[in-house]
Amino acid sequence: MTKGRLEAFSDGVIAILITIMVLELKVPHGADLAALAPLLPVLLTYTLSFVYVGIYWNNHHHMLHTVTRVNGKILWANLHLLFWLSLIPFVTGWMGENHFAAVPVAAYGAVLLLSGLSYYILGRALIRHHGENSKIARALGRDFKGLISVVIYAVAIPLSFVSRWTSVALYFAVAVMWLLPDRRIERTLGE
Amino acid sequence: MTKGRLEAFSDGVIAILITIMVLELKVPHGADLAALAPLLPVLLTYTLSFVYVGIYWNNHHHMLHTVTRVNGKILWANLHLLFWLSLIPFVTGWMGENHFAAVPVAAYGAVLLLSGLSYYILGRALIRHHGENSKIARALGRDFKGLISVVIYAVAIPLSFVSRWTSVALYFAVAVMWLLPDRRIERTLGE
Amino acid sequence: MTKGRLEAFSDGVIAILITIMVLELKVPHGADLAALAPLLPVLLTYTLSFVYVGIYWNNHHHMLHTVTRVNGKILWANLHLLFWLSLIPFVTGWMGENHFAAVPVAAYGAVLLLSGLSYYILGRALIRHHGENSKIARALGRDFKGLISVVIYAVAIPLSFVSRWTSVALYFAVAVMWLLPDRRIERTLGE
Amino acid sequence: MTKGRLEAFSDGVIAILITIMVLELKVPHGADLAALAPLLPVLLTYTLSFVYVGIYWNNHHHMLHTVTRVNGKILWANLHLLFWLSLIPFVTGWMGENHFAAVPVAAYGAVLLLSGLSYYILGRALIRHHGENSKIARALGRDFKGLISVVIYAVAIPLSFVSRWTSVALYFAVAVMWLLPDRRIERTLGE
Repeated sequence: MTKGRLEAFSDGVIAILITIMVLELKVPHGADLAALAPLLPVLLTYTLSFVYVGIYWNNHHHMLHTVTRVNGKILWANLHLLFWLSLIPFVTGWMGENHFAAVPVAAYGAVLLLSGLSYYILGRALIRHHGENSKIARALGRDFKGLISVVIYAVAIPLSFVSRWTSVALYFAVAVMWLLPDRRIERTLGE
Repeated sequence: MTKGRLEAFSDGVIAILITIMVLELKVPHGADLAALAPLLPVLLTYTLSFVYVGIYWNNHHHMLHTVTRVNGKILWANLHLLFWLSLIPFVTGWMGENHFAAVPVAAYGAVLLLSGLSYYILGRALIRHHGENSKIARALGRDFKGLISVVIYAVAIPLSFVSRWTSVALYFAVAVMWLLPDRRIERTLGE
Repeated sequence: MTKGRLEAFSDGVIAILITIMVLELKVPHGADLAALAPLLPVLLTYTLSFVYVGIYWNNHHHMLHTVTRVNGKILWANLHLLFWLSLIPFVTGWMGENHFAAVPVAAYGAVLLLSGLSYYILGRALIRHHGENSKIARALGRDFKGLISVVIYAVAIPLSFVSRWTSVALYFAVAVMWLLPDRRIERTLGE
Repeated sequence: MTKGRLEAFSDGVIAILITIMVLELKVPHGADLAALAPLLPVLLTYTLSFVYVGIYWNNHHHMLHTVTRVNGKILWANLHLLFWLSLIPFVTGWMGENHFAAVPVAAYGAVLLLSGLSYYILGRALIRHHGENSKIARALGRDFKGLISVVIYAVAIPLSFVSRWTSVALYFAVAVMWLLPDRRIERTLGE
């Protein structure tokens, strides 16, 4: 089975997710700058989630680039990833509208954690299908960045009840870490 | 006529359907865990429908993979399937917001039944176009799983007025049955 | 310039249009069959518009299939068509929520008329680019069905102020006329 | 890395953006022509934004057509452009619902300005990747139209507090300027 439709479907879902989040930016009734003020936390979380979904699309693009075939298990591992990503607009809206209250901040981290785990599972399913010596296996390697992200989320979730801004700062830090291009895969491809 | 645009268009519609269902998960006003409690049935039906739409995408992917050509009748049989699938977000929202009341549970089953029938019709249209000895004819065979699903829906709909939780359990059971990979088509492809 | 991205973009827009119309089917608050009753006209207009958008996608598919190249004018003629199609969800909702009142019925016809005209303009732009002896020119021919549709819309719009149900019946009649497969193009392709 | 998925993802996001703007055209409760009157400014801004997003899609299509390869920086420059474009529906709704009040008109210009800048950055990233003698470098040239657009936006933003209709007229003027086909790229392609 070829990967073409898997990529097309994932592109479609991710494109919709990254776009419908902007619907939470409800048009305010006032027409002055003060009307925008309550939207600032919503805009901030929108930007953070836009970057996160962008990172997932980017990494998904890189990861699928190195594989050639998919099977039923991979299709479902991919849908599993898309399920958790699909909850990002919900927790984004919840966190933004409640000005980074503790529980929504923890919920945001939980969805990031589960997205990260499902991405990891997808990577393993791809490696199992292509073999331990495949391009994808070498490209993903031990997936240090993926593991460290999951650890940081796991720390940030309980931390949100102590210092929610530290948790939010950790989410931003992970996003910045991923914004740096993934040299591992680019190096493997260049071999 | 090639199948490329049919696949692309179906991917687009299914990607949107699977994603807009999450819009029914309205951001709650409260910022504590109690605010999430009333959303639990909505989240549960969202998950069930996500799996169902995922199953349809997966099976659609497999089915179209075995064919090469489409005609006008197939285009319309496909749009007919997409029509019933497009009502899934509506009945999902209705069932979730009413905490699995009898009529919405029956309506949910009715949309599943009509989706199942239209999928069956699409399969027959593909077989008629490619011949009884084609790959698609052998792959679909007598479509036992499709028929049994339709029978279960037909039982679950009236049953919802007697025991709505049994109907919901049947919907979950059918979903689990389909989650198991479709060996028939994979075997035929592997020949 | 190749036609690939034009097709992909049009598929995307049409897939979204056909899907967001279902958002007008607002989840009712009641949980009995009586709660569905006020939704019946909305469901009826949704079905009509689903068929119309399906027809446009189908014809667009057929029409683009016969061409090979596009230019800037064709891109804009295509966007012009998508603009009018994008207003179909709005007039669908307006007509459905007002139970086929005269002005919304006329507005619905006006959007169909302008969609039909912009489809005709797109066809002419394609013929001009490929020449009067091209496959697309022979396939579209004098576009009898397109012209008669536009004439019927032009009659139905003022008629809605006299007998709105006659106008609605005319819209259904045109839809049925188009549901019959377009033999002209299929014949030309088969030459 | 090939450009296929970058194009597909951008097509998806832009198709959704151009379509969800129509959701701001809320179905009015009345059923007469008077009910449409308050929607006129919303319809006008919708049309303007539809044309702008259409221009971006068109130019994106032309620009990507002249390149062959992409890298991580280009992926992010593209997501950066999509981020600013994703705010167009928000400022469109804000400007339309407030009947072109000064602050929303300035905000609309600001989003256009940032979209224009991010498009320019994407163009530079593409040129850097393909070399100063590449097709894309010659096609974009000094990007006179892009620069003049940004200058006009920069003038229109403060001007909205003096004469908001002049600013709106400037936005329309820039749109008309871009509607004229981009001879530079078509000429380069024809070489």
